[in-house]
Amino acid sequence: MEKLGKYPFVAEQYQCNFRKQIFLSFLVNQMLCSADNHSTERELGTEQLNKIGRTWVLSRFAVELKDLPLRHSKYSIETWVENAVMFFTNRNFRVTLSDGDIIAWGRSTWAMLDMNSREPVNIFDIKDGLIKKYIIQDGEKESITAPIEKPSRIAITEDLELKRVIDTYYNDVDFNGHINSARYIEHVLDLFPMEWHKEYIIKRFEIVYVAESHCPDKLKFYISSPKEGDSVEYKVRITKLSPNSLQEIECCRCKLIWRKII
Amino acid sequence: MEKLGKYPFVAEQYQCNFRKQIFLSFLVNQMLCSADNHSTERELGTEQLNKIGRTWVLSRFAVELKDLPLRHSKYSIETWVENAVMFFTNRNFRVTLSDGDIIAWGRSTWAMLDMNSREPVNIFDIKDGLIKKYIIQDGEKESITAPIEKPSRIAITEDLELKRVIDTYYNDVDFNGHINSARYIEHVLDLFPMEWHKEYIIKRFEIVYVAESHCPDKLKFYISSPKEGDSVEYKVRITKLSPNSLQEIECCRCKLIWRKII
Repeated sequence: MEKLGKYPFVAEQYQCNFRKQIFLSFLVNQMLCSADNHSTERELGTEQLNKIGRTWVLSRFAVELKDLPLRHSKYSIETWVENAVMFFTNRNFRVTLSDGDIIAWGRSTWAMLDMNSREPVNIFDIKDGLIKKYIIQDGEKESITAPIEKPSRIAITEDLELKRVIDTYYNDVDFNGHINSARYIEHVLDLFPMEWHKEYIIKRFEIVYVAESHCPDKLKFYISSPKEGDSVEYKVRITKLSPNSLQEIECCRCKLIWRKII
Repeated sequence: MEKLGKYPFVAEQYQCNFRKQIFLSFLVNQMLCSADNHSTERELGTEQLNKIGRTWVLSRFAVELKDLPLRHSKYSIETWVENAVMFFTNRNFRVTLSDGDIIAWGRSTWAMLDMNSREPVNIFDIKDGLIKKYIIQDGEKESITAPIEKPSRIAITEDLELKRVIDTYYNDVDFNGHINSARYIEHVLDLFPMEWHKEYIIKRFEIVYVAESHCPDKLKFYISSPKEGDSVEYKVRITKLSPNSLQEIECCRCKLIWRKII
């Protein structure tokens, strides 16, 4: 079994935005599916781990885009394990069009949890440290350096403004019973009006998952003022308000970098 | 070129609901993508029609389900043209698991529109009536009878109650600039709380698209009282309220049939 996984896709028409490009949240969803397929083929997939009471939880994710696949174009997502330490593993992604043009990079951090306690567990304890077989070391033949910064913990010191409060519903909840990781990205991009999306394209989206949220939690979205430069930066904090609770708990922190369309 | 198109899929983990089954709205999206691929391979796809100022618009859709594909299971969507008359064509779908079990059927009606006037145009005028080559006549070797009722026009005589008003955002709008057909299904299923989804599974979902809506229209969802029998029936009317307009315009009518989980 090779260390690198490569998965082919087509940008399907009904999965494209008004610009006739794949929705970013959908591309991220496909990156997560590629990660799942890559780990499943190597006996470390979520479904296999669930049988021994363990699960993968996405902890941090960053994607950086030069472009998004256009309607009907073919592209591939490659993914591989960069490293693993105790409770966490880092996994990278590369998105390439069929003509060889690399259009996006992703970097992610995953935690392995005990399904009952929701506490982290040592990844090396699983199947005699099986994950080590699949880590691509620097200098190895298959080695690829992702030329983007790792997802950070996103310190938020700015003043934020409450922008929107939403209810969560059936379609927000995925197979593991909590609000879907890519769905947060959708909700965050929806904080920006269509006029904004017509003038700006997302260049980098970074998200830290702090706490899980569940339906019917309310989600509150707080946004910073824009930091302008060559590009425009926004930070977003998402909190949850669970039913019958007055305590607002932080779920996610995001950093978005937009570039103006020339 | 065969008349029937067959497209393979895998129920990807991050596209599954809390029951670890593909979301219905996502399956419908894939059915629409299969229709697009089938027509594109036969030179009658939306992108090809757009070049001559024409486009396909989904007018009615019905899907009936015995089951939904479970996480990681393989399935296929078959689609074919049942007939065409003047402005409309009927297209059917069959969803089959890899073991041969047929789990869903779909039937749909599409209109061909002039992109500028948004008026219907005669399908037989396009490429010398090319569509006729691909209609599967009754009795032909490839002929398949879809054993479910066609989508009806859904007469609503019941009293309806306003259940929810939502804003539309960037992620609701697809490649053709209007609210995505499958997205309405998502919003309608989200009218039902998680507790309902835990007890009931959708058996038949039928939708009639009456008028196109656009971002930032507000959508208003009106729902009937349940009609109980062996299964539970609901009707839903969706209207739009466009910015600076006081006129509420009907966009969609839906009929849902749910069965209780034994």
